[in-house]
Amino acid sequence: MFKLNENYLKLPGSYLFSTIGKKVNAYSAAHPDKKVIRLGIGDVTQPLAPVIVEAMHKAVDEMGKAETFHGYAPELGYEFLRNAIAENDYKARGCSITADEIFISDGAKCDSSNIQEIFSLDNRIAVCDPVYPVYVDSNVMAGRTGTYNKEQETWSDVIYMPCTADNDFTPELPEEVPDLIYLCFPNNPTGSAITKARLQEWVDYANKVGAVILYDAAYEAYISEADVPHSIYECEGARTCAIELRSFSKNAGFTGVRLGFTVIPKELKCGETMLHSLWARRHGTKYNGAPYIVQRAGEAVYSQEGREQLKEQVAYYMKNASYIYNGLKEAGYTVSGGVNAPYIWLKTPKGMSGWEFFDYLLEQANVVGTPGSGFGPNGEGYFRLTAFGTYENTVEAVNRIKALRM
Amino acid sequence: MFKLNENYLKLPGSYLFSTIGKKVNAYSAAHPDKKVIRLGIGDVTQPLAPVIVEAMHKAVDEMGKAETFHGYAPELGYEFLRNAIAENDYKARGCSITADEIFISDGAKCDSSNIQEIFSLDNRIAVCDPVYPVYVDSNVMAGRTGTYNKEQETWSDVIYMPCTADNDFTPELPEEVPDLIYLCFPNNPTGSAITKARLQEWVDYANKVGAVILYDAAYEAYISEADVPHSIYECEGARTCAIELRSFSKNAGFTGVRLGFTVIPKELKCGETMLHSLWARRHGTKYNGAPYIVQRAGEAVYSQEGREQLKEQVAYYMKNASYIYNGLKEAGYTVSGGVNAPYIWLKTPKGMSGWEFFDYLLEQANVVGTPGSGFGPNGEGYFRLTAFGTYENTVEAVNRIKALRM
Repeated sequence: MFKLNENYLKLPGSYLFSTIGKKVNAYSAAHPDKKVIRLGIGDVTQPLAPVIVEAMHKAVDEMGKAETFHGYAPELGYEFLRNAIAENDYKARGCSITADEIFISDGAKCDSSNIQEIFSLDNRIAVCDPVYPVYVDSNVMAGRTGTYNKEQETWSDVIYMPCTADNDFTPELPEEVPDLIYLCFPNNPTGSAITKARLQEWVDYANKVGAVILYDAAYEAYISEADVPHSIYECEGARTCAIELRSFSKNAGFTGVRLGFTVIPKELKCGETMLHSLWARRHGTKYNGAPYIVQRAGEAVYSQEGREQLKEQVAYYMKNASYIYNGLKEAGYTVSGGVNAPYIWLKTPKGMSGWEFFDYLLEQANVVGTPGSGFGPNGEGYFRLTAFGTYENTVEAVNRIKALRM
Repeated sequence: MFKLNENYLKLPGSYLFSTIGKKVNAYSAAHPDKKVIRLGIGDVTQPLAPVIVEAMHKAVDEMGKAETFHGYAPELGYEFLRNAIAENDYKARGCSITADEIFISDGAKCDSSNIQEIFSLDNRIAVCDPVYPVYVDSNVMAGRTGTYNKEQETWSDVIYMPCTADNDFTPELPEEVPDLIYLCFPNNPTGSAITKARLQEWVDYANKVGAVILYDAAYEAYISEADVPHSIYECEGARTCAIELRSFSKNAGFTGVRLGFTVIPKELKCGETMLHSLWARRHGTKYNGAPYIVQRAGEAVYSQEGREQLKEQVAYYMKNASYIYNGLKEAGYTVSGGVNAPYIWLKTPKGMSGWEFFDYLLEQANVVGTPGSGFGPNGEGYFRLTAFGTYENTVEAVNRIKALRM
């Protein structure tokens, strides 16, 4: 008789954003007259930039003609895209990453949940608290996290690194030594950034203790300050300890297009074995590449026109971020983030829990945000708003919140 | 100090088609004047049908306008596509599968390698021999297959079900009881089909012993005979024991577009737990949906025009299949497959091994096929040719092979 992967049964509740979706749908169904504004999930609202639309049309036409039809993609992704990434995201920033160290995928969510598969189940993971839930949940499913403590909402075998107002929402080096360290900067959910000097400390630490840093840089396009690194490979020594995960979802609005990539330097080894080889083997066996059309769309992101059009798009969202940040601050809220990231992290008023404030905002202001506790115990008492709405909706949402006079 | 997933290190050699690719590239580099014809990997060559191209252009335009832009897709896939599948692939064939039992993905390769994640590592798998390598390799990576015997090219904990000329390349019920049974019909690599009566025996067996059948029906569009089922849900009782995996790669030429789906009936349970819930959780945590544009392309496959255009495309490849089948038979080869599947399975001449024949064909006829041994020990002495080339190349390849006068 077959049996299930029992690790799945250990997972508490369902995926955070599924829960939010269900709550919002239920509210909307009960109140069809109310205009709900969603600043919860980090989904973009601006349409694809013209240069990307053009590139996709061209690629669709190619797929419709025998001479230019494309079947299975090369395993690591098309060279035209990997070259554009190596050139623009790395070489241009002084990082020595080559095209053949880049693996094209259908997004950073998939990569960040799949990457743990190439590591031993005995490995100990360290995550920030609060944290993007996918890192932990994918490790729970694999059986790497031990037992769940319902009271504390923590896993026995996970090292939690609190990110609180006291440390500017960037973690301290952990006391217990981890094997795999998940870092995400600019951070989801807190919107905090890390300086190059602080990140260098992490790289030095990882090299010293023999840990791998899984560095999620999905929000790098939102960096506005000079001392904040866009890539972990700006730090010395990162080639021997870091894997970087990148996304086109937020810099180019590809949440519904699906494209991302993972960088594994060939110097990153366990004994004689390159992690690059293991990930290549996983790609070859468990994946079949991103669509040709989508990879051409990704290439257009790096064209001169693409970079100009997307700079505007990022600026649009960052104008929202400023509006939220300043509006809530004026209204007396304690806020952070929003400067190098499209997320605003606010302290819930009057000691409300995150879910209490979620329900309150949904019902009183018809605004959807994300309870900080959904990202981990140290997120309790906080709340995330995203800057990915339209400007009009963002203004209206902030004004409605201000009108509540909490 | 971090450690690797040691199961990866147990994998012998690299993924079959990577090895073939490398051999062919090396040959082409050394002989740039030779025109190599590839009938090895099952990649299609016909362009996307006009109705699909049109649907994709329309979807690209939608993505370029704020009013019709689509961000993250619904977790199980868009309803328009799931409804079209439920209606055309299931209801029209008398199978009771509903839209909410269908999970849209980026292809059957990913699904067939990922599906094992929701099962216990203690579960025993049974596979046909020869077999599509992904089923076994994904289980090796997970740690479910025991130790590898280099001599026999088998894993200690895998139940192999020989598919040979003696049983018409369809497996007998195994002596040892498995938990998970991988079946692929029409079959890759042998091109064999299974009758509804034979498949019903498997469904009855699985229900009796408490096993799950993972039924890969990626090639169902090529079925030409009346007593061959297009879906396992044509069999009584399949809703309590079978998961079906489907692809758009071969019926609509989507190898470079990436779309597939998995069906998990809600009656398929372990105790009280629906497998549907576990797969939904995996989708929610480790996946982020197929692109909107690609899902619209999938919808077009089911339109009246789409079905007509794709019927022609399938007929084109099946004309190739007949040409290969008849040509090789005339030349004295022992051949099978090619009637309900786009693969021709031939016995290598003069007792050559599969790789010997591979090298021989590559060097003497500049034709690429796939050695049967790459699919498992019982594939030794056989060779696979695909019907997915252009008609002109297929004719030329067959004529070159005939000219060898083996």
